[in-house]
Amino acid sequence: MAETSSLNSRRPAPPPTLGELAALVGAEVVGDPNTYISGAWPIDDATPGCVTLIDHADRVDRLAESPAAAAVGPTDLPECDKPMLLVADPHAAFAALVQRFRPRSTRVSPGVAPTSVIDPSTTLGDRVAVGSNSVIGRDCVIGDDVQIGPGVAVGDRCHIGAGSYLAAGVVLYDGVRVGSGCRIHSNAVLGADGFGYQQRDGRHELVAQLGSVELGDNVDVGAGACIDRGVYGPTRVGEGTKIDNLVQIGHNCRIGRHNLICSQVGIAGSTSTGDYVVMAGQVGVRDHVHIGEGAVLSAMAGVSNNVAAGETVLGAPATPLKQQKLQMAAVAKLPQLRKDFRKLRREVDELLEETAPQGSTPEAADDPARPSERAA
Amino acid sequence: MAETSSLNSRRPAPPPTLGELAALVGAEVVGDPNTYISGAWPIDDATPGCVTLIDHADRVDRLAESPAAAAVGPTDLPECDKPMLLVADPHAAFAALVQRFRPRSTRVSPGVAPTSVIDPSTTLGDRVAVGSNSVIGRDCVIGDDVQIGPGVAVGDRCHIGAGSYLAAGVVLYDGVRVGSGCRIHSNAVLGADGFGYQQRDGRHELVAQLGSVELGDNVDVGAGACIDRGVYGPTRVGEGTKIDNLVQIGHNCRIGRHNLICSQVGIAGSTSTGDYVVMAGQVGVRDHVHIGEGAVLSAMAGVSNNVAAGETVLGAPATPLKQQKLQMAAVAKLPQLRKDFRKLRREVDELLEETAPQGSTPEAADDPARPSERAA
Amino acid sequence: MAETSSLNSRRPAPPPTLGELAALVGAEVVGDPNTYISGAWPIDDATPGCVTLIDHADRVDRLAESPAAAAVGPTDLPECDKPMLLVADPHAAFAALVQRFRPRSTRVSPGVAPTSVIDPSTTLGDRVAVGSNSVIGRDCVIGDDVQIGPGVAVGDRCHIGAGSYLAAGVVLYDGVRVGSGCRIHSNAVLGADGFGYQQRDGRHELVAQLGSVELGDNVDVGAGACIDRGVYGPTRVGEGTKIDNLVQIGHNCRIGRHNLICSQVGIAGSTSTGDYVVMAGQVGVRDHVHIGEGAVLSAMAGVSNNVAAGETVLGAPATPLKQQKLQMAAVAKLPQLRKDFRKLRREVDELLEETAPQGSTPEAADDPARPSERAA
Repeated sequence: MAETSSLNSRRPAPPPTLGELAALVGAEVVGDPNTYISGAWPIDDATPGCVTLIDHADRVDRLAESPAAAAVGPTDLPECDKPMLLVADPHAAFAALVQRFRPRSTRVSPGVAPTSVIDPSTTLGDRVAVGSNSVIGRDCVIGDDVQIGPGVAVGDRCHIGAGSYLAAGVVLYDGVRVGSGCRIHSNAVLGADGFGYQQRDGRHELVAQLGSVELGDNVDVGAGACIDRGVYGPTRVGEGTKIDNLVQIGHNCRIGRHNLICSQVGIAGSTSTGDYVVMAGQVGVRDHVHIGEGAVLSAMAGVSNNVAAGETVLGAPATPLKQQKLQMAAVAKLPQLRKDFRKLRREVDELLEETAPQGSTPEAADDPARPSERAA
Repeated sequence: MAETSSLNSRRPAPPPTLGELAALVGAEVVGDPNTYISGAWPIDDATPGCVTLIDHADRVDRLAESPAAAAVGPTDLPECDKPMLLVADPHAAFAALVQRFRPRSTRVSPGVAPTSVIDPSTTLGDRVAVGSNSVIGRDCVIGDDVQIGPGVAVGDRCHIGAGSYLAAGVVLYDGVRVGSGCRIHSNAVLGADGFGYQQRDGRHELVAQLGSVELGDNVDVGAGACIDRGVYGPTRVGEGTKIDNLVQIGHNCRIGRHNLICSQVGIAGSTSTGDYVVMAGQVGVRDHVHIGEGAVLSAMAGVSNNVAAGETVLGAPATPLKQQKLQMAAVAKLPQLRKDFRKLRREVDELLEETAPQGSTPEAADDPARPSERAA
Repeated sequence: MAETSSLNSRRPAPPPTLGELAALVGAEVVGDPNTYISGAWPIDDATPGCVTLIDHADRVDRLAESPAAAAVGPTDLPECDKPMLLVADPHAAFAALVQRFRPRSTRVSPGVAPTSVIDPSTTLGDRVAVGSNSVIGRDCVIGDDVQIGPGVAVGDRCHIGAGSYLAAGVVLYDGVRVGSGCRIHSNAVLGADGFGYQQRDGRHELVAQLGSVELGDNVDVGAGACIDRGVYGPTRVGEGTKIDNLVQIGHNCRIGRHNLICSQVGIAGSTSTGDYVVMAGQVGVRDHVHIGEGAVLSAMAGVSNNVAAGETVLGAPATPLKQQKLQMAAVAKLPQLRKDFRKLRREVDELLEETAPQGSTPEAADDPARPSERAA
């Protein structure tokens, strides 16, 4: 997690001017370009003299009451009292300014820390960085420009593709393969045993978990996420898929390319997804189903069947969005429907009584006017 | 996690008497004060000769059948056969007795372990303890009496306030600020990248995650919990807020003061909460909403809208408690309502037939007596 | 995570023949026993010349189009074009073949790594292996054949039974007891403080968490799972219980024997379970309830009451399976029921109008034909 932070050094340089910042991001200056700028902060955190971000015209009012000295905004922003940097993509420009004041990278200090323990049978590419107290096992292949934070544990026979980053505390069990350009966040665990048992004589015996985990290129894995090894072959995550914190992916899953899997999602074993699937937070997907390309699983959906390509589902059990919204609306009005039903029941009873031949009565033992009490 | 456990040493001292324990906790002794006491255990785990806890009169029967030699109880406890320590706050007294026999602290052994790696640019306060194999980056400020367990990774430019405790395996990414008196439990991760991507040419590109995480004073963070860094500014957790294990807090969130956030809660990005909010287990809250002061989100609630101050909500989608309970009760009785409806439908059909003019009939193609089959 | 992988060494041996593999697993060869076999992979991952698994007759068609050279199958498999190894238990045989080509064990390299830090007061059994950079505190007792991966932190006064395995990054707080034959996966945390606070003067104060965690023999704990210490006594997990990744078990819980607790389940404090309970993924169980022996909690169930022995429950709030399925079916048809109700309401209104005495009308202010608008 260490980084080269020369801009943060102890010898204070004079702060930059608005004009200098404009040049940095290719913005048009409105107002005094000689204004000194002390930092770059979003509007809720603005400090005196900083530059802030006004990404939409309807937020321009907040600038007046802010201690910020200036703001980055889109070129069509209405005029206001403070100096502005106008630019086509204000978010990109503001991000560059934040980096100017508070440079950040996920880069590890160059070189291999002397306290790391790397088996001599392992091959390290060029410019590999390994943080303090990290451990790499036997017969691994670590690609060029790989960055491994402190306290990481890489097992035997792992492959890590060029330019990938493993943050502090990541664990790769034996035989895990990580593509190029991946980011694995802290305390994620790849390759632990799948949860597969068979009962024998009243005991649960672990089914052999002999497979591995394979991530394609440019896969991100969030902090604390877990991807279990396959039973015989690999659990696979396709190229470009992004996995958020605390997600669980069970053994033998085949996750497609460019999926977005939000925090705390759980996917049970042997389930597969197409490309561009989106799973919102806390979704649960059962084992052995397929989620079609481009499907969207809404937050907290409980999915126990295949989902068709392009479908959006919601609820538990999950159903297509439109149907689930009708259901949810109907449930919200269900207490009223019950009242209305009871009123109708009473009216029909009166009608039946009126139209009944002399001497006949409704069955007293099965009073249809009070269904709720019978059902209770 | 090491501690000074002189009471646990190998030279056995004689066990304390009930009278000595009474003096320790300011209790009134009922029975023989010379009874030797071998330990302090709750009633389910009582061992021969131990003192146990009877915190309520209706549990006094359990004492007779227990191997415990005595019990701590409230002053109004009815008499029983075994010696008692009567005291106004029996839980506080019993906790003190447990500590007497099994002293526990979260304190790390004093001093900085020789196997830790601390950048020389970092400032350590007085009496800082750092466990084995921990790593602290550049330009950090570690307050007085901070306790850092083994295997912890602290990035660059982090601040940790006086008296805070980081348990084994905690990770702070660069620039994280922890207040005073905080407790961060094992394998919690503060400051990993938020889950923000924009799609470009069919690929998800990470939006710059340049902010940080700031915890107020006296914040507790549970084991394995994750708090992501903000996009430009800090993700904030207010003073006195307590966060349980495996909780996820997304980027840019502003969590108020004195919240209680139970295990496995997930809060999506840019959501804010007032003070004294309570979220029970497995709650999910969507992005960009506000949870008002003192609101209570019941277990497993799925919150996709603002919640008013003081409101209690339940269900997914979450609605105010009273309304949700009505809905849940109505759903439980829905199968019966369907039966009742079909009966009524039949009765009305008969009525319509009776009152219909000669020759007319109900529409056969749209038999209203069997709605369930049509809906299926 | 290192292992003795002599079969993986750099001097290539000739590949085994089908006949040699048949001898290894006691299979009958159908076809040429001299066929060289290059590896063992499941059908989805089959490589040219490998042996694969056809565990059921209806998958035999996949073999023809596969690059595999041969397959393991059950003795009653219909004949096909490729050589076969027929055997009574094809999964056990195939697992053995996978192990033959890609030997895997969770075994740590023998001996105590020089970079580990073990307090001299701690007792190590015979053949204990400790990985690099692991830390073991004071007065621990580590049984024979215990395997501890790299980067593990074991507190003071912990006991680990013979043959147990702690993977990389596991944390045991002080006083935790692990039985024999347990497997604790990476980054699991045992013994962190329970989430118990009492409010005093507007602040949440931690209730003393003085207990511990005790696992029986042959307990498995998944990656990132958390089991909190009890308040005064132990949080207990019974013999043979298997716990999946990212599970949360609160303080004072008493989990029975041979439970299966799937990923992301959360169990609040002081809850107990009988033996052979199954909890599917993402189940939530409230505090202070009891789940009876052999009960099954279906995926995502939200359990807020005791569950009877042998009962299967579903839904949130959880109800017995049959009842919940009726409810779910009824909810799915609820939009139709509302339509049917409105139609019936209109028909009855017309009937009422026809049968009404001259001059009377339905009450216009309470139009029962449009209940949905009133309820909205």
